[in-house]
Amino acid sequence: PGETPDPVRTLVRLCVDRHYISVGEGNAELFRRGVSCSYGPLGLELRRNLLEQWWHSVTRSSAHVFGINTVNISGDTAAGGPEQLRIVESESFQRIFEKQKVSKEQLVQMLQELLLRSPPVRKNLFKGALEQFVPSLELVNGKLPFGLAETGLCFQPSGGSGCSANEVMQTSLVWFCSPRTSSQWLDHWSRQRLKWWRKFALSPSDFSSGDVPEEELEEVVSRGVRIMYNFPWGQEPLETLWIRGDTELLQKSHAVLTVLQCREDRKSVPHVVSVTGNLDRGMMAFLSNSLQQLKKVNGRQRLQQRNVLKLHPTLAPVKVALDISRGATVELRQVCEGLQQELMEAEVSVWPGYLKTLPTSVEHLNAKYDEMGVLFTMMISENTLESGLLKVRSRDTTIKETMHISEIKNFLCRYISAADNI
Amino acid sequence: PGETPDPVRTLVRLCVDRHYISVGEGNAELFRRGVSCSYGPLGLELRRNLLEQWWHSVTRSSAHVFGINTVNISGDTAAGGPEQLRIVESESFQRIFEKQKVSKEQLVQMLQELLLRSPPVRKNLFKGALEQFVPSLELVNGKLPFGLAETGLCFQPSGGSGCSANEVMQTSLVWFCSPRTSSQWLDHWSRQRLKWWRKFALSPSDFSSGDVPEEELEEVVSRGVRIMYNFPWGQEPLETLWIRGDTELLQKSHAVLTVLQCREDRKSVPHVVSVTGNLDRGMMAFLSNSLQQLKKVNGRQRLQQRNVLKLHPTLAPVKVALDISRGATVELRQVCEGLQQELMEAEVSVWPGYLKTLPTSVEHLNAKYDEMGVLFTMMISENTLESGLLKVRSRDTTIKETMHISEIKNFLCRYISAADNI
Repeated sequence: PGETPDPVRTLVRLCVDRHYISVGEGNAELFRRGVSCSYGPLGLELRRNLLEQWWHSVTRSSAHVFGINTVNISGDTAAGGPEQLRIVESESFQRIFEKQKVSKEQLVQMLQELLLRSPPVRKNLFKGALEQFVPSLELVNGKLPFGLAETGLCFQPSGGSGCSANEVMQTSLVWFCSPRTSSQWLDHWSRQRLKWWRKFALSPSDFSSGDVPEEELEEVVSRGVRIMYNFPWGQEPLETLWIRGDTELLQKSHAVLTVLQCREDRKSVPHVVSVTGNLDRGMMAFLSNSLQQLKKVNGRQRLQQRNVLKLHPTLAPVKVALDISRGATVELRQVCEGLQQELMEAEVSVWPGYLKTLPTSVEHLNAKYDEMGVLFTMMISENTLESGLLKVRSRDTTIKETMHISEIKNFLCRYISAADNI
Repeated sequence: PGETPDPVRTLVRLCVDRHYISVGEGNAELFRRGVSCSYGPLGLELRRNLLEQWWHSVTRSSAHVFGINTVNISGDTAAGGPEQLRIVESESFQRIFEKQKVSKEQLVQMLQELLLRSPPVRKNLFKGALEQFVPSLELVNGKLPFGLAETGLCFQPSGGSGCSANEVMQTSLVWFCSPRTSSQWLDHWSRQRLKWWRKFALSPSDFSSGDVPEEELEEVVSRGVRIMYNFPWGQEPLETLWIRGDTELLQKSHAVLTVLQCREDRKSVPHVVSVTGNLDRGMMAFLSNSLQQLKKVNGRQRLQQRNVLKLHPTLAPVKVALDISRGATVELRQVCEGLQQELMEAEVSVWPGYLKTLPTSVEHLNAKYDEMGVLFTMMISENTLESGLLKVRSRDTTIKETMHISEIKNFLCRYISAADNI
């Protein structure tokens, strides 16, 4: 028996061991805090899948959402404000530091000017979308409602000691609608977003949504909703929705809006509903949510802990592991390579376990693939060469089935698309 | 007749008009220089398609390429060097500026320390991949060759006046191989990459590759190849391949490499071949390459210029435009919405032209869609309601065919996948 180990520690160790995140205490700390860290091959694939799903859910939900891509570095250097993060060229500062003939006051003034000329980096994608409002009107024939979607890196002060910064993969939907419908749209998008998070969850109740208390609302915001995840250490927001009114839009594009109002014969400027998410923290939420720790008794009557990463089939970075049971002959490898090629062409991601040359026990292999969250493990054996049959083990049921090699591709494609449509 | 307009100007104007890039002279200038600018919905989709194709071509070309994701902000603040771009918190500088009781020398020292503590941002993805070399060895059972692939934002000094910076979407493959095979691998990857660029080109001969002259090689580099595109203003590199030897790898991970050598019983450290691309410039190359300017005589015997953006079917951001010919009734709209839904589920991107309420002549509509690079235009009419038949116009042949609405999805999927497999 013994104590149950700390779930966060177990998760982080598993993520490092199984190539979700890279080694290093600093890297693990970034991961725990829900900002971008260095991801290994499995983590990268999980993030790609998650980004793809977010993108589809938002841009395909309606004909009126358009994708955009704005730049990180704002040309508008004045926009920043003092608390802004800026990109500077160290060399330009050094050149001023080395000036001998200037007074302290002159030096400070020169440095201050240089700092203010250095471009700010974005903290979120909201401002970029506001700038695209007017050019996008043509796309929708000047009609409301419509939305602009974007995903991209943003920078945040790390808040910790020193003057460090963190990066976050943000998702953003900025929705423009008539003032009287903004509250309905906030409700609509809150429901949609919560539904999306829960769709991929193993225990959906860990994802919840709730109104932001009025005292926490920023000046321009009239209502807010947060989608939260219940981490082992407490709740943290994954996505935040605000009704921001028309203030910021008016500041950006007043002249054009006046013209627009005349044409549409309306008295009101569109209101803005923003939906901003942190995909790095979202990834951590799904990893945390899908880790199942099962106890089982092994052959020697010892209690063993089994960790299974039950990621949703759509999100799982590796769908299939291909392995060879005993005696890796040239023929068996060729079968594996052929099957891998076929699956990759069908966009099914494959783990080439057959490349390993050191023999591993089946028990050890299953434990490893369960930790990686691999949906199915396929064992190619001498028997496959003769009969075309191979053993397929399911992560979720642990049941082993015998299948013909010609059925594998269709079986997997059907399984994944069925899981996708639930 | 009159003069032929400047091709670059025509291209940039078309890209702005047709929602590839956002309006603004500064934005168009970034685009021309081959760095990230603000992209509209069509530009974003093109970049997504291009990134996806790059990723597949590299990661699916062999079982031994793994995707990774490293962070932009290096924790290693000493790594920078003086020419480095760094992210600073303006506020921390301001606080030092305001100190009254310090001498000029003390002030400079405090600022210098602050600057050196500020994290550098990456100029390329190479260093990140080197750091992942050792953890990745386990993935390949310690066997060479293998590669690490990554795509991501990098920052570069803008080089222009002032202290500005630009961002670029870089692609990176770092390939680890035995020293004696590095030259072969450079040739292999050069051929592969050139083939890839040419696969999507309208006139493939504008893409070329050539050895980098010895005098341009950096210290650690023994050979280099550049993939170039012949822009109207001259050749510019899209992707660069270097043989970098083992120097940088040894600096990163000396201790581990020694252990590795013993186990593998080899005397040599792996050599590194790097393949680095600029996807923003690549996008501009494909746009420039696919713009065809055709002259034709219109109904009133006037010579007209017709611009067609003949983007490769795989890259084209919009595959189909759905339009209504005359009299937009509720029934016709419903047919369009149904068809759009069906196509979007099959991952065929659709332009909802039927949402426009102002009537447009067919000629004008075709001209617009040709400039957008839309592969097919479908006209839904009263006739469709009765017989299920609709008119399908091809961008490339300008021929109009009549098709039954039930065939559309299969026709498009077949067309796109056929183009993909050439």
